Amino acid sequence: MSVLDYSRYYSNLARSIKASEIRELLAIIKAKKNVISFAGGIPDPELFPRKELAEIARDVIEIYGDEALQYSETKGVREVRETLCKFLSTRKSIKCEPENAIITTGSQSALDLVARTLIDPGNVVITENPSYLAAIGAFKNAGARLIGVDIDDSGMKTSILEEKLRAMSPDERRRVKFIYTIPIAQNPSGVSLSAERKKHLLEIASQYDLLVVEDDPYSYLVFEEGVDKTVIKALDRENRVLYMSTISKILAPGLRIGWLIGPDDLIRRVELVKQYVDLHSPTLTQYITAEAMKRGVIDRVIGRAIPHYRAKRDLMLKTMSEYFPEYTWYSKPIGGLFIFTYVYKSNFDAGKLLPVAIEKYSVAYVPGGSFHVDGKGANSMRISFSYPTYEQIIEGVKRLAELIRES
Amino acid sequence: MSVLDYSRYYSNLARSIKASEIRELLAIIKAKKNVISFAGGIPDPELFPRKELAEIARDVIEIYGDEALQYSETKGVREVRETLCKFLSTRKSIKCEPENAIITTGSQSALDLVARTLIDPGNVVITENPSYLAAIGAFKNAGARLIGVDIDDSGMKTSILEEKLRAMSPDERRRVKFIYTIPIAQNPSGVSLSAERKKHLLEIASQYDLLVVEDDPYSYLVFEEGVDKTVIKALDRENRVLYMSTISKILAPGLRIGWLIGPDDLIRRVELVKQYVDLHSPTLTQYITAEAMKRGVIDRVIGRAIPHYRAKRDLMLKTMSEYFPEYTWYSKPIGGLFIFTYVYKSNFDAGKLLPVAIEKYSVAYVPGGSFHVDGKGANSMRISFSYPTYEQIIEGVKRLAELIRES
Repeated sequence: MSVLDYSRYYSNLARSIKASEIRELLAIIKAKKNVISFAGGIPDPELFPRKELAEIARDVIEIYGDEALQYSETKGVREVRETLCKFLSTRKSIKCEPENAIITTGSQSALDLVARTLIDPGNVVITENPSYLAAIGAFKNAGARLIGVDIDDSGMKTSILEEKLRAMSPDERRRVKFIYTIPIAQNPSGVSLSAERKKHLLEIASQYDLLVVEDDPYSYLVFEEGVDKTVIKALDRENRVLYMSTISKILAPGLRIGWLIGPDDLIRRVELVKQYVDLHSPTLTQYITAEAMKRGVIDRVIGRAIPHYRAKRDLMLKTMSEYFPEYTWYSKPIGGLFIFTYVYKSNFDAGKLLPVAIEKYSVAYVPGGSFHVDGKGANSMRISFSYPTYEQIIEGVKRLAELIRES
Repeated sequence: MSVLDYSRYYSNLARSIKASEIRELLAIIKAKKNVISFAGGIPDPELFPRKELAEIARDVIEIYGDEALQYSETKGVREVRETLCKFLSTRKSIKCEPENAIITTGSQSALDLVARTLIDPGNVVITENPSYLAAIGAFKNAGARLIGVDIDDSGMKTSILEEKLRAMSPDERRRVKFIYTIPIAQNPSGVSLSAERKKHLLEIASQYDLLVVEDDPYSYLVFEEGVDKTVIKALDRENRVLYMSTISKILAPGLRIGWLIGPDDLIRRVELVKQYVDLHSPTLTQYITAEAMKRGVIDRVIGRAIPHYRAKRDLMLKTMSEYFPEYTWYSKPIGGLFIFTYVYKSNFDAGKLLPVAIEKYSVAYVPGGSFHVDGKGANSMRISFSYPTYEQIIEGVKRLAELIRES
């Protein structure tokens, strides 16, 4: 029925926007049933506390229905923010009053709100390289130029961060708005920022008068002893850190609840932006989340998730060590849902090979180029161990190894 | 604890954004218990089908938990879009396949997505004058300039729309992206576009090659016989209409579910934008909405809501006719939740008087200036009859009448 050419109507953003490769993949993979997907960072539904959430949802509507089904404050229901602050202060040592918190529609919405509240076209954002592709996308859509800082086993190399800032002209330095970091069990690499570097990062932020946007979906899912799980926000004496997290990996992503914690002034500004973006996040799932916190459901999910995902990670690493050729390198993640792999073979392009991987080898991953802010990483890929079964992990790794050898 | 001056970090949008007066009001009013609020368009919670929704929420999690709690497609769960299309085709005669639909996080999010997908700074959007203030805000935030077209009892004066377009220079005409209209039980005026004008509007859109964004939250809530309830989308032969609506007024706003229906190509582009905005709308409340449609819950709410709100409207109009001074004019809405009032008294400024109204008269409304795109309407206000009780309607109208007489 469409006969018009709609391209004349599109905004520059809509015209230029790139499809998120993960989202596109999910659609393709759904259609092809035998594909083993290591693509999305999808929680294992076995960990969903269905019975408890079914009860909570019913209770919340029966008991608080008039409020839980109604419009609510843009920042989020006050009682929910109070529960959240308690949760964060006991588990993450984050000082938090309800005025410091805004509930978001999942963490993607937190990224978008941060982008719209802080970024003007031409501004600069500094990130780890590689970093989370949908954060990169949100910042780029707001017009940011991204500068990447290399990582190693201790996370972002803060000495390089410092060098890059020092080398900038005053004019360029003024354009930098914030440093975006996923300090613990980083996406895509699985590495964590060391305690010393956390301090160093805050010193640098202070010296150059920058904000820090800390994205922390994974600190609940650390598999190893001895990893420093302190969030940067807990060390934030100057109130420079905007902390964000979500229940997506520790309760259920389908509720779409995330949050931003920061200085009142900044949170108030985010609130003004959010009024026109989605008015407020779903009241019902806010109540469900708070109730799941209060009843200890989230803590129990975390307790089950850590050994569950650790076992899957171990199996994936073990299978990779058996089948992957010697010209590959891959991360040994201390937590989270992902392993990041580089293939050191000339002309290996994980992006170009993806259709072949899906069609011929029936295995899927996310090409690593999307996580790089400098156009590099064509020879890399992110693979997730969270969703596939043990059998699929073994079989999928074998298929991936074949693809790598034969391409 | 905040010591930094955060203003240096804000984007131009965050710096310039105006607080939505309704949202700010809600916060103030919550703190002052004895204020009678005619401000927000808040559904009467008496109409929430608590028992049925509690059952549905529990069932949905128990039966579809693996999917309902999981990430889902950016466009929305396919089965939910199928159910929605059936609902819209039988109730609104809208032709709709799942590819034509995208589920949004309430209708505010639909407005924001439309703005980001279609508007570049400097573009022009044509609206009714007055029009919905949060739509005006979303379009302005995207950089649009708004041109208003006057309304009368038959809705937007399409002859004036035509004149305005004809009078434009070719260059200005090229900047116009779409006409935004709330054709049925318009917010804030309560008037409806006549059948002839609907046709005329589509002819004009065709002649000047414009899209039409049709916002339709209220056609389910028409109180009078003889009103043409045909949505413009049902008449849309050239596929120029982007239709949006929501369950907020006919089921529960706290679920935050709305939708956009349009040509595949356009919906696909909205989808790309939405990937970076909130990834997808809450899977759980999508499932709950679809189930409420299937079980006839929404139809039953509508059946109860029409006489319920009609009675409240009648009472408010009757009380206004008794107490309002003769130098006021107010709309006689055929549906929806609002009455729009003009006060013809020199220097009457509803915006400036609002703090007085709340503090001294303990009554609240939304100043009409916010609904006007041309800076006019300072002497107008929008009052809602949906949320207050009968007693509050009578008492609140008396207080408002006093305020008007004494100011």
